[in-house]
Amino acid sequence: MSGTDHQNGEAAATIGTLATPALLLDKNRLDCNLARLSSRMAEQGVVLRPHMKTAKSIDVAQRAYPSGAGPITVSTLAEAEYFAQHGFRDITYAVGLAPHTAARAMRLRKAGIDIKVLLDSPEQAAMLGAAGRAAGVIPSAFIEIDCDSHRGGLTGTDPKLLVVATALAEAGVKLTGVLTHAGESYSLSMPAALVAAAENERTVAVAAATTLRAAGHECPVVSVGSTPTAHFADDLTGVTEMRAGVYMFFDLVMHGVGVCTTDDIAISVLATVIGTKPEKGWILVDAGWMALSRDRGTAAQRVDQGYGLVCDVAGKIYPDLIVSQASQEHGILAIRPGSAHALPNLPIGAKVRIVPNHACATAAQHELYNVVSASSDAIHARWPRMRGW
Amino acid sequence: MSGTDHQNGEAAATIGTLATPALLLDKNRLDCNLARLSSRMAEQGVVLRPHMKTAKSIDVAQRAYPSGAGPITVSTLAEAEYFAQHGFRDITYAVGLAPHTAARAMRLRKAGIDIKVLLDSPEQAAMLGAAGRAAGVIPSAFIEIDCDSHRGGLTGTDPKLLVVATALAEAGVKLTGVLTHAGESYSLSMPAALVAAAENERTVAVAAATTLRAAGHECPVVSVGSTPTAHFADDLTGVTEMRAGVYMFFDLVMHGVGVCTTDDIAISVLATVIGTKPEKGWILVDAGWMALSRDRGTAAQRVDQGYGLVCDVAGKIYPDLIVSQASQEHGILAIRPGSAHALPNLPIGAKVRIVPNHACATAAQHELYNVVSASSDAIHARWPRMRGW
Repeated sequence: MSGTDHQNGEAAATIGTLATPALLLDKNRLDCNLARLSSRMAEQGVVLRPHMKTAKSIDVAQRAYPSGAGPITVSTLAEAEYFAQHGFRDITYAVGLAPHTAARAMRLRKAGIDIKVLLDSPEQAAMLGAAGRAAGVIPSAFIEIDCDSHRGGLTGTDPKLLVVATALAEAGVKLTGVLTHAGESYSLSMPAALVAAAENERTVAVAAATTLRAAGHECPVVSVGSTPTAHFADDLTGVTEMRAGVYMFFDLVMHGVGVCTTDDIAISVLATVIGTKPEKGWILVDAGWMALSRDRGTAAQRVDQGYGLVCDVAGKIYPDLIVSQASQEHGILAIRPGSAHALPNLPIGAKVRIVPNHACATAAQHELYNVVSASSDAIHARWPRMRGW
Repeated sequence: MSGTDHQNGEAAATIGTLATPALLLDKNRLDCNLARLSSRMAEQGVVLRPHMKTAKSIDVAQRAYPSGAGPITVSTLAEAEYFAQHGFRDITYAVGLAPHTAARAMRLRKAGIDIKVLLDSPEQAAMLGAAGRAAGVIPSAFIEIDCDSHRGGLTGTDPKLLVVATALAEAGVKLTGVLTHAGESYSLSMPAALVAAAENERTVAVAAATTLRAAGHECPVVSVGSTPTAHFADDLTGVTEMRAGVYMFFDLVMHGVGVCTTDDIAISVLATVIGTKPEKGWILVDAGWMALSRDRGTAAQRVDQGYGLVCDVAGKIYPDLIVSQASQEHGILAIRPGSAHALPNLPIGAKVRIVPNHACATAAQHELYNVVSASSDAIHARWPRMRGW
């Protein structure tokens, strides 16, 4: 592992002695979350291709693949290069291609990494073909399919689908398959709607693959995925692989969607009380948006969690205590409006854990994970995160 | 300078060849912004103590102090240690004190750094006294004053003011002065209201100092500041120093407040077009919230700028083109609702610059500043940023 192991050597760090704010990762919860989706996909006979954009950590990736590197998804070429350096060779870069990323991806391909890229236009197909020729490799690409008007991609019935496939063939690019992401599932919360979103994601992707195959294009992979649809899909017929990222850690947004309980959420931010304003019902802590991120993803959900839900140092939730406001290095804890619960008595120096709205955004504010477990207050390891592009 | 200078040696980088997303810093605008507030404070006879929480860069700090280190403000002890290593010795840590930060600050003081800390309770005073004794130094502290119910601190008339001052004296801590921050000024936009907020910040701080002095406490420093009040204060009688941070770069929130024009904003995020959806009026770029931050500070202002205002690669604004949505590595550009302007024709691979809502939050997402100027497209230098706590 690339992280520091604290079991031998230097004096053992504990949650109590950690400087704050600090990011904690509960390894037991991480393992449960990893196992839950792995076994779900194994049952359905679908390859799981975890998205590393959430964790951005080789140690987490190795926890997902304890017996050796497997297929992964990444959101930047810096991630692709980082995971390739650490032995991952089957990588999908799931963000639309530009000229500079095409050239950089083809350098990785030249180095023996089976990198697949994403596009939805004949212009990108020609550009990728040129980058492949320049590097002396045959590129592999997915055509991006738009299943829910969320972002990029072609709708399943867009006649451009065959135009792009033809452009790929003409450019000497291998068509790996079709790829879609049910991003709108993040805005749902009813199980029936989530099952329907997963079924829509499947049918749109499978229909696009069917169209391509009927026109004579090989299209071996049908790749779908989002954490909500991965957990709610009833039927994955025709799907060959599932992508998901935030499922490893979960967060309050996923709790609001209904994919996890708060006890499944594996990351939290440890903070220290630095002031109290009893007359305003406030407790001030040293975790502001720099430690929590500016993400307010629960603002549009049924329960608005502010900038996070507050727990005691052992991880037990204080009823209705949330981070109601955040400035750069200050968080203001307050009881949720309308609640009858009282503000807990937390003096200066007391520590709390804050469960975040959005794991991807909060983790990105930190250099490393302090790895903890439920059974003790020891910091078992420190796992670095990569960043940048 | 600690940054890399690109004027000799390796092949010159340009905006056109930079991998995206990337943070650009216009050094001419930076210099103008620095000079504007410096000369304003010099005219008023008030010390300017720039807040380094926005820039977090020794190169920017040296630009603010070209003839040698001066007084600075910081938001974390990691910043204090970083700037101390680079020769800054007069540092105010303007976040409420906790036991671990008291001990760490006193280690800096023991190393010869004149660090001042902030508190508003007798418990913190006792804690700081103990940390000072443990380190063998006499601590210096500000009492935090709350001028606008924004965050921490004591109101100017709180009887606890004298209780805290007495506790400091009993703990063997030097009372440096009073410190307040008109954080609520960020929500204003009318010049008369901004002048009034500055005058309120001044009068509350001066009154607190007067109360302390009348009770026999030395209270040499009256420290106020926020970027809006620093630029709108008509009268600073009794104030000895001004703190501000975002004024160095400015941003769309400060533009909405009325402190700067969009042409004053010194930072922007360079992005590349990775997709188009003309049927939806969308252009997709490779700058999502990871590059822009999740900050939506203009959402509450008269003009909502989405996740940022879009300019061409030379910095000229496309009328009413904003980043309307952001996911982790995708930004969706669209024309502001209600505008008659047309979507510009930006093909795959085209580059744009995005002016951010909140300079502190956006810059924090990046490793370094790519330093540019108005006169060419060269990258003049790369200035690293520090991070963490």
